[in-house]
Amino acid sequence: MKSNIPVTSLQRLPVYLNYLKSIGSQEGYVSSGAIARALNMGEVLVRKDLAYTSAEGKTRVGYKLTELISALEEYLGCNDKKNAVIFGAGGLGSALLAYGGFSNYGIEVVAAFDNDAAKIGSEIAGRPVLDAKCAQDGVKRLDVKLAVICVPAKYAQEVSENLVCCGIKKILNFAPVLLKVPGDVTVRNVDVAANLAILSSM
Amino acid sequence: MKSNIPVTSLQRLPVYLNYLKSIGSQEGYVSSGAIARALNMGEVLVRKDLAYTSAEGKTRVGYKLTELISALEEYLGCNDKKNAVIFGAGGLGSALLAYGGFSNYGIEVVAAFDNDAAKIGSEIAGRPVLDAKCAQDGVKRLDVKLAVICVPAKYAQEVSENLVCCGIKKILNFAPVLLKVPGDVTVRNVDVAANLAILSSM
Repeated sequence: MKSNIPVTSLQRLPVYLNYLKSIGSQEGYVSSGAIARALNMGEVLVRKDLAYTSAEGKTRVGYKLTELISALEEYLGCNDKKNAVIFGAGGLGSALLAYGGFSNYGIEVVAAFDNDAAKIGSEIAGRPVLDAKCAQDGVKRLDVKLAVICVPAKYAQEVSENLVCCGIKKILNFAPVLLKVPGDVTVRNVDVAANLAILSSM
Repeated sequence: MKSNIPVTSLQRLPVYLNYLKSIGSQEGYVSSGAIARALNMGEVLVRKDLAYTSAEGKTRVGYKLTELISALEEYLGCNDKKNAVIFGAGGLGSALLAYGGFSNYGIEVVAAFDNDAAKIGSEIAGRPVLDAKCAQDGVKRLDVKLAVICVPAKYAQEVSENLVCCGIKKILNFAPVLLKVPGDVTVRNVDVAANLAILSSM
């Protein structure tokens, strides 16, 4: 991981970026205090998080807004093009294929893989649905670095093993199961139901 | 929030629950060390997290598996029925309507709201799509406590204001924007693109 940033700090960087982009270009400078107030966070924490990027704040003035946005975008790799694929072209997979927000982070979803003959060969939101059996070839040809698992829970482990065979090292997993992967593969889990349950318990 | 549990601990409780459910009923007892190894976490952290629940571990034996699962389910409110609605019956909203995993946490998605006349009155995965203009009445009638925002980013703030008017206090937001809500309303953000960008930066 870049400069050993804690995952919790890394997770907040897109939040800062979204906020800074939303405040509009009429603002020349923005202070860590203003960011902290807007996001309901501690100012010291904001300053610590931003110190992982190349942005430099000036005493009593703050950060130049355009520079801070650029520094965050650079840190998050928004300017490095990365290809991603989606495994499972069901409801969620299709929704993610149609979702435009990935490009903000330099990520292009180039294809989906599925094992349903009725879907293979079709297009969803302009992206081809390819045969999961040919994933290894497709992943290499399309120069894919990231994969998103959108299959039902009972197939997720098998799909993740397939992805590992394809040389994928970064997996975003929407299936509510704990995937067993080799140590050099990073999995990030997005359990939608658990998120709603956590919210309900807050 | 229950017993002032830190959000970071609360977020891990569904992970423990999923893992414990996956190891099968042949295991009578499970130790914090075994949980920690399986989830690649520190044992002290596991013990601290589980101490927020009513589960009690025994020295050198660990937790009784069935009791620990029950304690986590109780803490996460899996046995309290809660109705949820989805705002925005597009690709993502439709996928969530069809997703079965909410019931594990006692959450029932009872309806979707949309403003598209072509969708209003239809059913998705057996749930009715209702007119967003009548949300206030619907939310009251259906006894809804949780709402999920699945509309495009530019409509999300307006929808959240509508939800607040309906008396909803807990919002799961999939739109990649920072929502401005009153202090007694809790928002949890799931920014899918940001999650993929974070994974890419790890």
